[in-house]
Amino acid sequence: MKPTNLLVNPLLTDLYQLTMAYAYWQSNRHNDEAVFELFFRKNPFKGEYTIFCGLDEVLKHVASFKFTDSDIAYIKSIPAFANCDPDFFEEYLAKLDCSKLKIYSLDQGRTAFPRIPLLIVVAPLGLGQLLETALLTLINYPSLVATNAARMVVAARCYNQSHLDEPMFGVRSSMHSSWRADNDFAIDEDRPRITLAEFGLRRAQGPDGGFSASKYCLIGGFDSTSNVLAGKILGVPVAGTHAHSFVQSFTKLEEASEVSVQFNGETVYLLPHVLKYRNDILGGDWIRTNDSELAAFITYAGAFPNSFVALVDTYDTLHSGIRNFILVALVLDDLGFAPRGIRLDSGDLSYLSLEASKMFRELAVTLNRPFLRKVIISASNDIDEEVLYALNKQGHAISLFGIGTNLVTCENQPALGCVYKLVEINGAPRMKVSQSIEKVLIPGRKEAFRLYGEDGWPLVDLMIRHGEAKPEAGARVLCRHPFDEKKRVAVVPKRIMNLHKLVFDGAIVVDVPTIEMSKQIVKEELKVIRSDILRQVNPGTYKVSVSETLFNTLHLMWHDETPVLELR
Amino acid sequence: MKPTNLLVNPLLTDLYQLTMAYAYWQSNRHNDEAVFELFFRKNPFKGEYTIFCGLDEVLKHVASFKFTDSDIAYIKSIPAFANCDPDFFEEYLAKLDCSKLKIYSLDQGRTAFPRIPLLIVVAPLGLGQLLETALLTLINYPSLVATNAARMVVAARCYNQSHLDEPMFGVRSSMHSSWRADNDFAIDEDRPRITLAEFGLRRAQGPDGGFSASKYCLIGGFDSTSNVLAGKILGVPVAGTHAHSFVQSFTKLEEASEVSVQFNGETVYLLPHVLKYRNDILGGDWIRTNDSELAAFITYAGAFPNSFVALVDTYDTLHSGIRNFILVALVLDDLGFAPRGIRLDSGDLSYLSLEASKMFRELAVTLNRPFLRKVIISASNDIDEEVLYALNKQGHAISLFGIGTNLVTCENQPALGCVYKLVEINGAPRMKVSQSIEKVLIPGRKEAFRLYGEDGWPLVDLMIRHGEAKPEAGARVLCRHPFDEKKRVAVVPKRIMNLHKLVFDGAIVVDVPTIEMSKQIVKEELKVIRSDILRQVNPGTYKVSVSETLFNTLHLMWHDETPVLELR
Repeated sequence: MKPTNLLVNPLLTDLYQLTMAYAYWQSNRHNDEAVFELFFRKNPFKGEYTIFCGLDEVLKHVASFKFTDSDIAYIKSIPAFANCDPDFFEEYLAKLDCSKLKIYSLDQGRTAFPRIPLLIVVAPLGLGQLLETALLTLINYPSLVATNAARMVVAARCYNQSHLDEPMFGVRSSMHSSWRADNDFAIDEDRPRITLAEFGLRRAQGPDGGFSASKYCLIGGFDSTSNVLAGKILGVPVAGTHAHSFVQSFTKLEEASEVSVQFNGETVYLLPHVLKYRNDILGGDWIRTNDSELAAFITYAGAFPNSFVALVDTYDTLHSGIRNFILVALVLDDLGFAPRGIRLDSGDLSYLSLEASKMFRELAVTLNRPFLRKVIISASNDIDEEVLYALNKQGHAISLFGIGTNLVTCENQPALGCVYKLVEINGAPRMKVSQSIEKVLIPGRKEAFRLYGEDGWPLVDLMIRHGEAKPEAGARVLCRHPFDEKKRVAVVPKRIMNLHKLVFDGAIVVDVPTIEMSKQIVKEELKVIRSDILRQVNPGTYKVSVSETLFNTLHLMWHDETPVLELR
Repeated sequence: MKPTNLLVNPLLTDLYQLTMAYAYWQSNRHNDEAVFELFFRKNPFKGEYTIFCGLDEVLKHVASFKFTDSDIAYIKSIPAFANCDPDFFEEYLAKLDCSKLKIYSLDQGRTAFPRIPLLIVVAPLGLGQLLETALLTLINYPSLVATNAARMVVAARCYNQSHLDEPMFGVRSSMHSSWRADNDFAIDEDRPRITLAEFGLRRAQGPDGGFSASKYCLIGGFDSTSNVLAGKILGVPVAGTHAHSFVQSFTKLEEASEVSVQFNGETVYLLPHVLKYRNDILGGDWIRTNDSELAAFITYAGAFPNSFVALVDTYDTLHSGIRNFILVALVLDDLGFAPRGIRLDSGDLSYLSLEASKMFRELAVTLNRPFLRKVIISASNDIDEEVLYALNKQGHAISLFGIGTNLVTCENQPALGCVYKLVEINGAPRMKVSQSIEKVLIPGRKEAFRLYGEDGWPLVDLMIRHGEAKPEAGARVLCRHPFDEKKRVAVVPKRIMNLHKLVFDGAIVVDVPTIEMSKQIVKEELKVIRSDILRQVNPGTYKVSVSETLFNTLHLMWHDETPVLELR
C-alpha cells in the first residue's frame, strides 16, 4: 500500500535528520531503543479541541519506507556528507526499513488535547529520528484542517447535540446560537439539512494541499468537495454548479434560442416558454432582467434540467439573477424536471438569502407552485466560522455553504504546531527543559486513557508512565495537573478508554482507516464532548492530567537537569 | 515534460468546470474564442508588491494536458452527468488537448501588481474553462510564498538597494532600519552575509505544499532549504544541523568517550581534550555545563568536524549550551578543523545572540583564537517578518535565519486570492459588474506595459486594449486610474517593457523558467523597485493604470450592463 502522493518517500525529510542519523550510526547508537511522541501543545483556532487525522498516510508511508539507490546516491552527493564513512550509506541507509518499528496511535477522527501523544513511536534511534519530518508533515495539516472543518460544521449547524443528524435551521437560529443542549426547538421539516461543500482547491498550497484538504475536510464533517481528482481517487461525492465566467460568456438572448429538452418524447425549446413567463405572466419589472444572464441560465438548464442551480449575482442578484432563475425554473417544473436552486457569491448573504426565500415562498403561493418552497439557497463568498456564527445571529435561509479559502488555508491559524520529541532512550526517560513552561517536555514513555463519567461524557484524559498500574472503571484515581502542584482532582470513572492502539508492528496491524470510519468517529466524538468545550467564544477547557508517578518523575528530573543559576 | 507532482492532471479541477464545459459543448459554444485573465486584486501581507511565480508548473501541466480513459470513465460515473450525451465524453473530452491554447505570461519572478494579468489565456471556451482551477492552484500559492520569502529577505537584510549582495549587518542596523537608499553605512567585513534557510516542511499543507514552498522560497531569495527531497529533485542547496532530540538522546558524558577524529594520520579521542578545556583552562562555572549535552556535542563534532553546528538551548543557552559548543570547538580548532557555529531555538534572540557574540569575541582575544570571531550564530524560533524587523531594531548578531511555519503557511495572509475571469468572447469584451468596486472586472483582452522613468525606476504599469497603439519610449502617454475619473497622470517614459510574453502556443515556446533564472529576476526587480513600496509599514502604492480607450470601454459597458434600480 503506497502513499497517495509519490512525493512521500524517505527523502521527504529535513537534512538534519540525516546528519543526526549519521552521528548516531557513527557512534553506534543508531539501534538504541528510543521512544518518540508526536503531540501538540495548544489547540488551534483559540479552541479547546482538535480532531486527530493523518494516520492513514502515515501507515502507508512507514509500510513502504525504503531508500532507493538513487536516493542514496543523492544523499552521498550532499556536501555535508563529503567525508563520511561510506558504510553508513551502503550498510545502514540502503538496508533500512520499518521492520523494527512500532507505532501506537489515537484513532483517526478522535478528539485530541494538548500533550496527549497523537502517535507514540517506538523505534531504533536512527530510524525514529529519520521518520520525524514526514510524520509531522502527514499529521500537522490533516489534523488542523479536519479540526477547522469540524468547527465550521458545528458553526453552520448550530448543533443541538441530541439532534446531530437533524440540525436546526439557520433562519430561526438566533434563539439557539448557544451550544447548550436544549431540546425545545423545532426542526423546520420543509427545509433540507444544512450541508457543507469544500471548494478550496484553488487556494490551497498546490495540488497536494488541495487534495489533503478535500480528504480531511470530509472526515471533519463536510459533505462533498469540488475537487474532481479527490472524487476519483477517494470515491467521495463531488459538487459544483457554474461560475460567473459561464454567465459572462453569453452576450444576448438569442444565444439560447436552440436550447431544448426532451418532454414526453418531444423536443421542447425553452426560450419561448421562459419569455412567456417573463413578459406575460410575471411582467412588470421582470422584463428588465439581464438578457445575457437569462440566456446563460437557459443553456445551463438545458444541459442539467434535473440539477439546475444558477449563480445569481453576476449582474444584480435581486433584480436580475434570482428572477432569471425563477423564470427558467418555472419552465423546467412545467416540463416535469426538478430545478435545484441558486448560489449567492457576493453581497449581504443574510439579507439576500432571506429576500430570495421570501420571493420563492410568495410565488409558491401566488402561482401555486410548491416546488418553489424546496429551492436550495447556497452561498459561497469568503465564508468562515465567524461568518457562519454571524449568519446564525442575523438569520438566513441558506441550506448549503460552499467554503474554500478560509477552510483550506485555516486562515485563523494556519499551522497546528505538532512536535515530535524523544521521551525515552534505552528505558531511561529524557526531558527538555525550557524557560517557558509550555515547552517543558513530560519525560518517559507513557500510556493515556480517557476517563468517562456517569453521564457518558469524558471527564479527563490521564497519562501514566508506561507499565504503571492502569486506571480502572469504578476505582478512584488521582489526576494531577502536570505543572501546577496545587491542581489535583480525584475521579471515579464509569468507563475508561485506552487512547492508544498498536497500529504498526513491523507491518500495518490494523485496517488503514477509511474516510467513512474516521468521519463516523468524528461525528460520535462531537456528540459526547462537553458542549462548553465546543463553544466559539471562551470555550471551557478539557482537563489533561498525569498520574502521581508521572508527576514525580517529571519534577525530579526537572530539578536534576536544570543548573541552579548563580547570580552575582 | 511532466508536472513535478503526478496529482497535476486534467482532473485536478472543480466539478463545475466540467459541468460548464458540458453546457458549452451541448450548446455548441465550446470552440468560441475566449480570453481569460488570471490576476489578483490586492497585494498580500498589507504590502504593495507581489512576486509572480508558478509559471514553470503551469507550462508542464498544459503541455501534458490529456484526459486518460480512466479519467473519462470516472467523469461519466459522476451523478451530475447521469443523463448527458455520451459524445461529450468520447468526441470531446477524450480528444481534448492544448494544441489550440495560447498563454501570455509575466516572467516568473517579475514583480506584479493588482489587476495586471499574470496570465492571459487565449483558448477555445471549453478548454479555457477547464484549465481554470489548476492554473489558479499552480499560481496562487507559489506567488504568495515567493512574495513572503522576498519580504523576509528584505526584512532580514535591511537592504540598502545599492548593496544588494552586501547587506548591512543586523547588529548595527538600528540606525538603518529604513529602506531609504543611503550609502553611508559600512559593511562589517568580519561577519558573513545574512543568509536565510527555509525549514517549513513539517508545517506545510502536506508533502507537496512543503515541496512547493521550498522551490518558490528559493526563487523569492532564500539560500537553502532543509527539505532533502527538494534538494534531490530541484538540485538546490540543503541545510540543517541537529535537533533537541539528538541532545536529549545522551544521558552521560561517558557516552562520548569513544568519539575520535583523524589528525595527522592519528586517531585522536575528543573527550579528554574537551575536559582539559572545561576543567583546567576555563574552569570556574564552566565545569557545571550539562554533561549529556556535552556528550552530544562531542559526538556530533566527531561526525561532522568540518561543519560542526550545535543547537545550544536544550538545557540552558548561556550557562551550558554556548559553553559546551566553545569547549568542543576549541578542540576541533586545535586539530585543524573549522567548527561553524551555534543555533538558537528559543528565548530572547536579540539578547542571546549578542551575549554569545560577546563571549566569542572576548574569548577570541583572551585565548588568542581568531576563529571564534567567525563563528556563525543562527536562529530559528518562530521567526517572521515582524520579528526580523524587531531584531534589526533591538540589535542582534545572527547571521543565519532558519524560517519555517510563518514562511510556508504565510501566516499573515495564507491565500493570495488570484481569480481567473473571462474578459472576451469571440472578440466581444465581457465584464462582471459588482456592488463592490474592487470586484468590477476590466473588460476585454488587454496588453500591459511597464513604463520606466529617467532614473531607471518603473513609474507606472499601463493596460491598453489589445490592438490599440502601444506606448512608445519618449512619447507622452495618458495613464488613467481604472475607476476614478479624476485620477490621471501623463507620463513620458524613458523605457518600456512589454509585460507579457507568449509562452505557450500549442506547445511550450520559451525555456521553462528555472529556479536560477527566476531568482535572478526577483533580485533585479527588488533592486529597481521604489524603496517606499518595499516598506513594511505604510508602504507607498505603485500605480496601475489604463489607457483612455480602455477606460472608456469599461465605463460604457458598465452603464450598459447595470440595470437602473427603481426605488419606490
